[in-house]
Amino acid sequence: MGNMLLQSVAPLGAPPVDLRIKDGRITELGLGLTPQAGEQTIAGHGCIALPGFVDAHAHIDKTLWGMPWQAHCAGPSVLDRIHNERQLLTALALSAEQQSARLIQHMLARGSTHVRTHVDIVPEIGLKHFHGVVATRERYEKSMGMQIVAFPQMGVTSAPGTLALLEEALRTGADVLGGLDPIGIDRDPKGQLDALFNLADRFNVGLDIHLHDGGELGAVTIEMIAERASALSMRSNIVISHGFCLGSVPPARLETLVTHLRELDIAIMTHGPSGGLPSPPVRHLHEQGIRVFSGSDGVRDAWGPLNTGDMLERAYLVAYINGFRDDAGLELALTMATSAGAEVMGLADYGLTSGCKADVVLVEAQTLAECVVAHPARKLVIKAGEVVARDGQCLLA
Amino acid sequence: MGNMLLQSVAPLGAPPVDLRIKDGRITELGLGLTPQAGEQTIAGHGCIALPGFVDAHAHIDKTLWGMPWQAHCAGPSVLDRIHNERQLLTALALSAEQQSARLIQHMLARGSTHVRTHVDIVPEIGLKHFHGVVATRERYEKSMGMQIVAFPQMGVTSAPGTLALLEEALRTGADVLGGLDPIGIDRDPKGQLDALFNLADRFNVGLDIHLHDGGELGAVTIEMIAERASALSMRSNIVISHGFCLGSVPPARLETLVTHLRELDIAIMTHGPSGGLPSPPVRHLHEQGIRVFSGSDGVRDAWGPLNTGDMLERAYLVAYINGFRDDAGLELALTMATSAGAEVMGLADYGLTSGCKADVVLVEAQTLAECVVAHPARKLVIKAGEVVARDGQCLLA
Repeated sequence: MGNMLLQSVAPLGAPPVDLRIKDGRITELGLGLTPQAGEQTIAGHGCIALPGFVDAHAHIDKTLWGMPWQAHCAGPSVLDRIHNERQLLTALALSAEQQSARLIQHMLARGSTHVRTHVDIVPEIGLKHFHGVVATRERYEKSMGMQIVAFPQMGVTSAPGTLALLEEALRTGADVLGGLDPIGIDRDPKGQLDALFNLADRFNVGLDIHLHDGGELGAVTIEMIAERASALSMRSNIVISHGFCLGSVPPARLETLVTHLRELDIAIMTHGPSGGLPSPPVRHLHEQGIRVFSGSDGVRDAWGPLNTGDMLERAYLVAYINGFRDDAGLELALTMATSAGAEVMGLADYGLTSGCKADVVLVEAQTLAECVVAHPARKLVIKAGEVVARDGQCLLA
Repeated sequence: MGNMLLQSVAPLGAPPVDLRIKDGRITELGLGLTPQAGEQTIAGHGCIALPGFVDAHAHIDKTLWGMPWQAHCAGPSVLDRIHNERQLLTALALSAEQQSARLIQHMLARGSTHVRTHVDIVPEIGLKHFHGVVATRERYEKSMGMQIVAFPQMGVTSAPGTLALLEEALRTGADVLGGLDPIGIDRDPKGQLDALFNLADRFNVGLDIHLHDGGELGAVTIEMIAERASALSMRSNIVISHGFCLGSVPPARLETLVTHLRELDIAIMTHGPSGGLPSPPVRHLHEQGIRVFSGSDGVRDAWGPLNTGDMLERAYLVAYINGFRDDAGLELALTMATSAGAEVMGLADYGLTSGCKADVVLVEAQTLAECVVAHPARKLVIKAGEVVARDGQCLLA
């Protein structure tokens, strides 16, 4: 199993070669490789081979994917959406296990082979969503690499009981600790951040904090995160997700924040636009040495129906929003959906060179830039040497 | 020819019915219609039927669609792009006839059945592009409704000879007169606008003016357009394309512009974002009684590779940029890609009721809102009662 010869594929747009996969790893790339006994042979027809996409910011526990269409009805603020969500998910008696499995199948069909998912942990539902996603992670263990972020969607200090639940999740399988708008939601930035950093330090896990707060609210929060990261020497293990404030503070203020981010190697996740809010200037951040990467965010859930769980389309949206027309910009957007997310997730052996894990997506295109602008159908998706999707259809139950 | 019974389709998301087409028009909608002699029967499988998409702002004469990938290399300003374009198209010896035909086939494959295309008319190339597009219009006369806008891409008063060429185009088949940033490009708003309004009035054609100029530059231009439209009583026959300034002027200033637009029924075309520039607030404009509609703009040309010629994806991009999460917003975005553009183009008998021309697109979705967020593959595209595309492939040569 997991042994195949993929003939005539163009790794990251390079001239076509054959690609040998043994025991789930890429073992050889070359021209005219001879098929060996026990190898499945697949014709790549000169398609571009991309490494499996990395959806490094998702919320698979609460998607409505595969359910009857649900018209969005929440108000415009983050708080409106949080409260509407609790009501809707209760009314729908949503099963996090079933729904996360549905979305994983869809994500595989679109070529994602790794996902970092923020799972709601709130007093009202306890660890219900977390246990559902853990079950889905086990079910798709061979097909989708998954990191679980214990995510306090209702806040930390303002939602008593949350901290103990987060700790329990970290003790029983969560990989990363999440957070949410320490000022906008908890109105207690010191309280939330002290609690989160203490917990992350005790469990020796990374932090991935949702920061929707714009302008100076967000900027001050980044400074407070940087202070604590510096005190604990938590270098390279912190993500700020969304970070809309980076798109709205004045240029000189942005540069003070960039300095903090670079010194502590804090990474920035953006999924692109959010209802007209400015998004982080990712090319500038990248040029300044900040790690930037991307994810689907919530796919068709109570927060809205606009995200699709397709990381190649996500690269297109990020490029579109940022006005990337040149190949370098389009390739940066693709990197944000592939290797940059892999780096943040700490994936070993990611890529298309010999020795890497055989997570491969085939698409018809002339160049990497064209992969992004055309975001064509996925002809084939291979995970650890097994074909998991073909022509946009997931082959797994 | 053009006679068919389309069984079980959901017109605009309404409960499924059969739809009879005779001589290129919809003649009957109902449950369990009996196939008649000479009718082709097509199973719709409950797909949503949409009216053929209207791409009401394109530049089909200068697309690089179907040619080898061309990395974008122009500078960031409109003037940079204009000059880079002339050099590139000359170097490529681009054939407007061949290229416009390629793009028309692609647009049909994605479900557009009408296009308004702005064709470059500049002294350096004379009417070469115009003649090429006229030839393509004749070639696809039965399959793609086309309006040609005589478009002074290098400006009017600053590019001597242009005005005579525009007049020649209007005399020989152009339907609409175009314009371009009277301040930003010509630096002569009075000169350009007086010349254009005089010409449009003499030929009794509509005006469709590109206005990239942002902030107060654009706002003053809108006032100058409104003054002239008012003096000539050119009501409902003027379009401002892009109108980025509507997304950047302060709210009170926006309302003075909205009053002008409403009083003269000037329509606004937006294709969504443009390299981070704010775009017009289309829901607000729509609620204020302004006609808003959409188009692909330039598809993979010297201006950049980001646009795709897919109007259902365009509706998604417009929705995404504007943060439309509710069904009403998503349906507005769909209307901008269908009936709103049809109205601006003055298309008679557009729609899916009895008596309308049979331009129909089938997609798999539960609701109109889902059509936009999922922008699924086009199962079938029918133009004037003939199947012109199936499963994303154009059937015409």
